Amino acid sequence: MKVVLLAAGRSKRLKPIEDKNFLNFLGKPLVQIQLEQLAAAGFDDFVLVGGSHNLEKLRELVTAMAGSRRGGAARLSMKIEVVEQENLDDGMAGAVLSAASVASGGPVLIVSGNDIVEDSVFTKINKDEFVGAAGANDGFLVAKEVGEYFPGGYLQVENGFIKSIVEKPGAGNEPGNLVNLVIHYFKDIGPLVDALKKTASDKDDRYEQALDSLMKGGLKFKALPYNGFWQPIKYPWHVLAVMEHFLAGIKPKTDGAEIAESAVIRGNVYLEDGVKVLDHATINGPAYIGRGSIVAGNALVRGSCIGANCVVGYATEVARSFLGDRVWTHSNYIGDSVIGNNVSFGAGTVTGNLRFDEGNISMNVRGEKIDSGRNKFGLITGDHVRSGINTSFMPGIKIGTNVCVGAGLTISMDIENNKFVTGKTELVQHENKLDISVILRP
Amino acid sequence: MKVVLLAAGRSKRLKPIEDKNFLNFLGKPLVQIQLEQLAAAGFDDFVLVGGSHNLEKLRELVTAMAGSRRGGAARLSMKIEVVEQENLDDGMAGAVLSAASVASGGPVLIVSGNDIVEDSVFTKINKDEFVGAAGANDGFLVAKEVGEYFPGGYLQVENGFIKSIVEKPGAGNEPGNLVNLVIHYFKDIGPLVDALKKTASDKDDRYEQALDSLMKGGLKFKALPYNGFWQPIKYPWHVLAVMEHFLAGIKPKTDGAEIAESAVIRGNVYLEDGVKVLDHATINGPAYIGRGSIVAGNALVRGSCIGANCVVGYATEVARSFLGDRVWTHSNYIGDSVIGNNVSFGAGTVTGNLRFDEGNISMNVRGEKIDSGRNKFGLITGDHVRSGINTSFMPGIKIGTNVCVGAGLTISMDIENNKFVTGKTELVQHENKLDISVILRP
Amino acid sequence: MKVVLLAAGRSKRLKPIEDKNFLNFLGKPLVQIQLEQLAAAGFDDFVLVGGSHNLEKLRELVTAMAGSRRGGAARLSMKIEVVEQENLDDGMAGAVLSAASVASGGPVLIVSGNDIVEDSVFTKINKDEFVGAAGANDGFLVAKEVGEYFPGGYLQVENGFIKSIVEKPGAGNEPGNLVNLVIHYFKDIGPLVDALKKTASDKDDRYEQALDSLMKGGLKFKALPYNGFWQPIKYPWHVLAVMEHFLAGIKPKTDGAEIAESAVIRGNVYLEDGVKVLDHATINGPAYIGRGSIVAGNALVRGSCIGANCVVGYATEVARSFLGDRVWTHSNYIGDSVIGNNVSFGAGTVTGNLRFDEGNISMNVRGEKIDSGRNKFGLITGDHVRSGINTSFMPGIKIGTNVCVGAGLTISMDIENNKFVTGKTELVQHENKLDISVILRP
Repeated sequence: MKVVLLAAGRSKRLKPIEDKNFLNFLGKPLVQIQLEQLAAAGFDDFVLVGGSHNLEKLRELVTAMAGSRRGGAARLSMKIEVVEQENLDDGMAGAVLSAASVASGGPVLIVSGNDIVEDSVFTKINKDEFVGAAGANDGFLVAKEVGEYFPGGYLQVENGFIKSIVEKPGAGNEPGNLVNLVIHYFKDIGPLVDALKKTASDKDDRYEQALDSLMKGGLKFKALPYNGFWQPIKYPWHVLAVMEHFLAGIKPKTDGAEIAESAVIRGNVYLEDGVKVLDHATINGPAYIGRGSIVAGNALVRGSCIGANCVVGYATEVARSFLGDRVWTHSNYIGDSVIGNNVSFGAGTVTGNLRFDEGNISMNVRGEKIDSGRNKFGLITGDHVRSGINTSFMPGIKIGTNVCVGAGLTISMDIENNKFVTGKTELVQHENKLDISVILRP
Repeated sequence: MKVVLLAAGRSKRLKPIEDKNFLNFLGKPLVQIQLEQLAAAGFDDFVLVGGSHNLEKLRELVTAMAGSRRGGAARLSMKIEVVEQENLDDGMAGAVLSAASVASGGPVLIVSGNDIVEDSVFTKINKDEFVGAAGANDGFLVAKEVGEYFPGGYLQVENGFIKSIVEKPGAGNEPGNLVNLVIHYFKDIGPLVDALKKTASDKDDRYEQALDSLMKGGLKFKALPYNGFWQPIKYPWHVLAVMEHFLAGIKPKTDGAEIAESAVIRGNVYLEDGVKVLDHATINGPAYIGRGSIVAGNALVRGSCIGANCVVGYATEVARSFLGDRVWTHSNYIGDSVIGNNVSFGAGTVTGNLRFDEGNISMNVRGEKIDSGRNKFGLITGDHVRSGINTSFMPGIKIGTNVCVGAGLTISMDIENNKFVTGKTELVQHENKLDISVILRP
Repeated sequence: MKVVLLAAGRSKRLKPIEDKNFLNFLGKPLVQIQLEQLAAAGFDDFVLVGGSHNLEKLRELVTAMAGSRRGGAARLSMKIEVVEQENLDDGMAGAVLSAASVASGGPVLIVSGNDIVEDSVFTKINKDEFVGAAGANDGFLVAKEVGEYFPGGYLQVENGFIKSIVEKPGAGNEPGNLVNLVIHYFKDIGPLVDALKKTASDKDDRYEQALDSLMKGGLKFKALPYNGFWQPIKYPWHVLAVMEHFLAGIKPKTDGAEIAESAVIRGNVYLEDGVKVLDHATINGPAYIGRGSIVAGNALVRGSCIGANCVVGYATEVARSFLGDRVWTHSNYIGDSVIGNNVSFGAGTVTGNLRFDEGNISMNVRGEKIDSGRNKFGLITGDHVRSGINTSFMPGIKIGTNVCVGAGLTISMDIENNKFVTGKTELVQHENKLDISVILRP
């Protein structure tokens, strides 16, 4: 069976994060984590669909993964073909059609790179009972059992088979409690490809329409209910939810790190080799610190995932935050934030992460104000960002890629890519008439 | 003997602190401390005079105190009647007249809730020698022996008896060194009540005039000199003086608290049950930390009284300050400040507490600039206050109740109740022409 | 042999540092360090040339040094005469002529107080081989062997003797690799004095012209090549280079200091008597802390030289910086900075020390922008400076003597002496419509 992993999405609502597939959790890009998760469940034949924006990085990753397997540590046998979806506006339908060039017939499991689920889903699927059971039918869709209304596609099941998918029916109108996840098994990809080719839609639902036409045409699909963790990465704050998920599963490891005797490590803390933890620093797990990073004197890290070659500087707290690689902090508070790669904060820069009224924090996403569902939520930055000293970022603010923000500013609006932001401050100078020639204090 | 404790004052000069009686020192409201101090000296029959603004709270307190005595820990037998002074403009005269409804005859000790004195005053009074000695006369007034001029009421003593009270005679004109405290014993309250009823005054001295008329009418009052600690709570900075007094008397207690091994506790530190002291925190006594409060990582508390359910956050210093209940700090410096209940400071917010010239810090009190007599003096807040991140409060500033102060501001003026304060900042955005795509630093 | 130590320069390019001679390194004024370095090499007869701006201080120093030698610890016999150079515009020529009043004949070693060199230079000079060798000639000039072009005076050597000094020949035009240092030995000062008197120049090269005329007149001078450390103190950042040099040579000493058990001292750290290091503080050597100074709780000092009676306050980092005496910090970051005497920083004040593009930091020196050659370079202050809380200083900024800088400001321009700097901030007050009457956070 081929697994088609969809990784061509442009993460538009995730901006300024450029590509969710290459967010590093616990030291690995998300797409690699997903491939390895599938491989651990026994799948070994992959089609990875990318776009022009990430095709080269996907290929490099596949090469690096193969190299690392040859390197001795590998137990997994994986064949990964990278294909390009040329027109990204064709959405998921286009992605499947692109994959069809190398998976033109036979069984296929289509998996979205957007959704983070537990290993159990894939282990279950790969067992005979499910694929075997599906074998008697034409396929199945994995469906998340939801307790309250979720604005997704609900499965309408009749006589044991899915009759249709009802998109966002509205609370109270749900035809059940099963919401469609993009983990779809087809006994044969052929009919799906034919249906996709026949379907035309100017909306982003061509795949769903094709699937619907297959059902209406008599193909029989079952629902595979799933009750575990599920988190899509659609909005920036979802990065924190996924981070929390991965952190919840880490095992402690501190050997290979250099830890000052006066430093304190509590709970599940994973320190990659070469990490240094300096005097009077504290790390409260769960926490992951990437290769070569430093947690400097008197710093505090808690509930965070920190990339490689970072410095959590002196007297800095990083709380419940995701930091990319090469992030430099110094006497900062970084709370509930998602920080890109190659970012440096001047001393005294602070991320606000709580409203005065402690209400949920909203964010501007493609012109719309979206409630993050979180009452603690800080800063989101792209890559290559600098802030000056004593700068203040309001909760839920986005800073684009390649941005410099001057010192002493209060940033309460999103900043687009490639900006250099300063403030207008006027100093007033008088003659100093105070006598300050001595310090009187004891 | 009945003790009339005057607690109806409106603390006008103490604003934004609403009611001095309910300032919690070492976990107890001031009025309770005073009642218990009197009870410990052997008094057991109290009339507590309140106003409409605090009557309910006083009654609740009395109920709670009774409950706590019944609870087993109590050794003190106390009867407390709460009476309302209806017209608060009638000042102390009105308060005593209100008390007269339940203490219409017999001996009475009138005590002001404004004045903090040592236990010894009351122990002394309750001994036969004093009340007995007074028994031969008509009463006595406790008088503070002062070394230098104090702007209060001086006792003019002739032939062993007080002839009159001279209000603020001015330095050099003092008729002695005895300043009237409001701890007044009357063998019989009746003549005082009659005199008060007969006295009319549109100034705030009706009580003093009535007292004067009693003396002139032949009643004989003695002075009871007192040489110990005395501190009225009239201005906000007096809260600090009273705090220092109570802190000076605390005994260390750390059992019942959870203290990280790397934390350091020095000197006389009293931690209520449920207090947590996290890694690398330091508490330098004298200090009191209220029930359920947290002194977080790398924080420093010294010479302070901190209420219940507070968080002294990471990398925060609280020095020589009084914090109410539910105060949240985070990477702050709170120095020589008086902070109300339910107050939260954004990370990086700092209270200035010293002038450049290290001169005494003044404060606006009811339109007048009053020298606090302190060269270190920080911020005073009411209840329900929020400050944004990186905000700066100048020394001696008052922030009213229910106030939000935005991020990155420098606050150099008092803020009235119920305000939301922001600043006008204009950002200037240019194209970023710097190459910041790498971090060069080692 | 008399040593003429030139200490009359007005340190114009070093502003706001007033007098390099009285910069204290490792607890001693630079001029004293130089005198003792010469004494240790065996010289004992000094003429110290000062100007009206520092003559008294030089005399006091000489008195103090004599007193300290008498006090028992002294091993060095030194005779030091202080003379005044009246017209400081006469530069080095004038200085030598002033010295001639007390050193009118015989051998003389002229040493500039501007140049910091290793002991070995002077030890070498005082050996017979050199002075003896010079004895056969008329003197020698110590010359630094340089690897790359340096904008100084190059020695043109022919047949073993210096033919002339070529000032700033430009890269590629150097007549050799020897750059003139002002460590000049003359077998007899007489001819030099005569030549100086005969030479008139309105440029600052009268000394060099006189020397040239001596060479042209047949006197024979040799070059004494020197390959060790050499650092002039001309620009403010040179103070850091000299500090690094002295710190590199310190030996650890911590006895006589009071060090909390939870504090950490690493590497070569010299603590003068009476230093206190409080809880959870860290000092990473090389570092020097002057008499009576305090490194307070959770502070970090590294690679720095800190004067006497300073406070490195709670949660403050001082990194690679030079602090004068009586400097008070508190929750600050002071990086790569040179701070005068009697300076106090409000809590939250930060020195920026790195440009966004990590390029070299320039400084305005007498109207010209000079590249410091350092990509980490912070703040330079004169004496008697105060900053308010949460103030931000941009990299390479100079703050003059007797300056107060208000709170919350971003200072990106140099501030002249005797200024009081404030900002224009306008607060906007609305009614607070948020319900903040409770803190909801767990």
